Amino acid sequence: MQVNYQQKTLGILGGGQLGRMVIQSAINYNIDIHILDPDPDAPCKSICQKFTQGSLKDYDTVYQFGQDCDIITIEIESVNTDALEALVKEGKEVYPQPHIIRLIQDKRTQKAFYKEKGIPTADFILTSDRADVLAQRDFLPAVNKLGKEGYDGRGVQLLKDERDLEKGFDAPGLLEKLIDFDKEIAVIVSKNKAGEVSAFPAVECAFHPTANLVEFLFAPAEISEKIEKQAQQIALQVIEELDMVGILAVEMFVTKEGEILVNEIAPRPHNSGHHSIEANMTSQFEQHLRSVLGMPLGDSSLRTPAAMVNLLGEDGFSGEAFVEGLDEALSEKGVYIHLYGKKFTKPFRKMGHVTILDEDPKKLKERAQKIKALIKIKA
Amino acid sequence: MQVNYQQKTLGILGGGQLGRMVIQSAINYNIDIHILDPDPDAPCKSICQKFTQGSLKDYDTVYQFGQDCDIITIEIESVNTDALEALVKEGKEVYPQPHIIRLIQDKRTQKAFYKEKGIPTADFILTSDRADVLAQRDFLPAVNKLGKEGYDGRGVQLLKDERDLEKGFDAPGLLEKLIDFDKEIAVIVSKNKAGEVSAFPAVECAFHPTANLVEFLFAPAEISEKIEKQAQQIALQVIEELDMVGILAVEMFVTKEGEILVNEIAPRPHNSGHHSIEANMTSQFEQHLRSVLGMPLGDSSLRTPAAMVNLLGEDGFSGEAFVEGLDEALSEKGVYIHLYGKKFTKPFRKMGHVTILDEDPKKLKERAQKIKALIKIKA
Repeated sequence: MQVNYQQKTLGILGGGQLGRMVIQSAINYNIDIHILDPDPDAPCKSICQKFTQGSLKDYDTVYQFGQDCDIITIEIESVNTDALEALVKEGKEVYPQPHIIRLIQDKRTQKAFYKEKGIPTADFILTSDRADVLAQRDFLPAVNKLGKEGYDGRGVQLLKDERDLEKGFDAPGLLEKLIDFDKEIAVIVSKNKAGEVSAFPAVECAFHPTANLVEFLFAPAEISEKIEKQAQQIALQVIEELDMVGILAVEMFVTKEGEILVNEIAPRPHNSGHHSIEANMTSQFEQHLRSVLGMPLGDSSLRTPAAMVNLLGEDGFSGEAFVEGLDEALSEKGVYIHLYGKKFTKPFRKMGHVTILDEDPKKLKERAQKIKALIKIKA
Repeated sequence: MQVNYQQKTLGILGGGQLGRMVIQSAINYNIDIHILDPDPDAPCKSICQKFTQGSLKDYDTVYQFGQDCDIITIEIESVNTDALEALVKEGKEVYPQPHIIRLIQDKRTQKAFYKEKGIPTADFILTSDRADVLAQRDFLPAVNKLGKEGYDGRGVQLLKDERDLEKGFDAPGLLEKLIDFDKEIAVIVSKNKAGEVSAFPAVECAFHPTANLVEFLFAPAEISEKIEKQAQQIALQVIEELDMVGILAVEMFVTKEGEILVNEIAPRPHNSGHHSIEANMTSQFEQHLRSVLGMPLGDSSLRTPAAMVNLLGEDGFSGEAFVEGLDEALSEKGVYIHLYGKKFTKPFRKMGHVTILDEDPKKLKERAQKIKALIKIKA
């Protein structure tokens, strides 16, 4: 097949840091990128070929935006899937496919899908409102998740015991058995139109103790070869069962008994793959492009062990951002800074990330802590 | 020193592929990039924060362009240095410094500089016009170079014997003894404001037989440790003698006797460093940014042996470009495509490049030939 990517226009719903890093890759292929985002100062704004300010959830806005594009993809799940389906009917290519975005948008249908397809996941109960949650004291300790609109730590609530029940969401959601896990890992898989699939090696995620955001990530994950292989198989099973074209991040728990349970999935580039820009043969952003544009998938293997540190807005600071400690961090070998072009910071806002490469994976934890202590995003 | 790079505006004179790849790096630091280029469709146009169409050689245009910028740099040498000097007097930072750009713009002053500073270079005679060239039959075989405006193979003429003398340039230039060299190598060095210097490992350049453009590049160069060390020392000597802030590509001949002679220098990112995006710990584009913005320099070491293939417009094709063989090339491991966003191709126009990584450097020559045979830029 002879495709001239230079003549394709790729529309991306969402213009945040994920889109920004996709654009950094797309520049290598002369692809025209159109961005739709509600934020007039979205991180993609000044580096894309066309920027439209508008709601991702509004049918007409999304539908109109898609008219100019040959292929449409997403960098956030909360988008109007009805408009995307209408665009597909008119001959546009939309990846991931709209019905898959819709399935993943709702954690309730996501869980039902795992159950139906025999994909291992924590036990759960669907809840319609707070009264439903209150009735489930025997199911505790559990995690209460909102069905829709949860993002970056929002919409998730730990219910340890009865005293926490009042915190339950008064909206459709689910209660998931709290897993006493040993590790949280993630595997990013991808599939292109030709049916080719690929899996990145598993990474290990360390979450911020209170903000419920990934704080550190380590690649490779410190897991046995057997677990690594199983995790990749499960992630590939998910994308195959979905029959999804694009890139899919599969977050999993490894229990103390060595069982793997799928936690959540995201059908787009993901925080757990940021290190791949420097650490892997192909980055997740390039792989995303390759999959949605119908190119052959790239080699996902790890070149160098890496740690990733999210640069979150320092607690207590809001306003025009500045970065403290950048020069000190940059004097170290193998340190790569990625700032997301966000003018304003607020507590825990994702402002950037740092990737650290080190041939000796044992040094990565200490180095990641050091970088985190060095770089502060303040106002 | 606490610098907030986010608040700096970097002006680049020239908006071609070198600027484009600088921008791909600059996105990581939230730097505002302003571009000046005479081409309304310059490769940087749609990915910079401000684009000005205008002449790089016109005093007023360059002077006005600089007013908006905090720091000004170049991606091509043919710029108005008087305007840059006026900007320096008004407190703007300009790197490389204007007097160095002026020195390098003219191959005659460049050669005189080598001689004055004891930097090894081929013997030469300055010539004012064709009559001067015609008088130098005893100096043949020689290379006749125009003093100014030579670029990408233009302004260079091989004079093998008397019959070639008529091809001599009828303008100020020089005659340089033809060197019976074993290899052509290049070392890219950089220096920041704090005086820190760094050298990339030497690379080996293979030129196109007729177009006088780099066709292939191999890193590492196949040279002895001694030659490698000497080449790095000479390149560092050049940047130190110039006392230049920025990045400097130093092209050298290695003679059959193992002598190193400086051929030409370029005070900007250079074709001989394109592989560094994937092959080195720090790319030349990032190093350029670091040097002119006053950041600490990055680790220049090679991660993986690499070959670089320039994608030149196929001979015989002019018009709207398309790329043949992209998918086949991308199915190979360790192949990285960089297209330069140029809509129109013409014979030998630099349209992109490909970097090939391979842990086994012996395979690189064959793989580079294969990629060159696969990918064609046609119209």
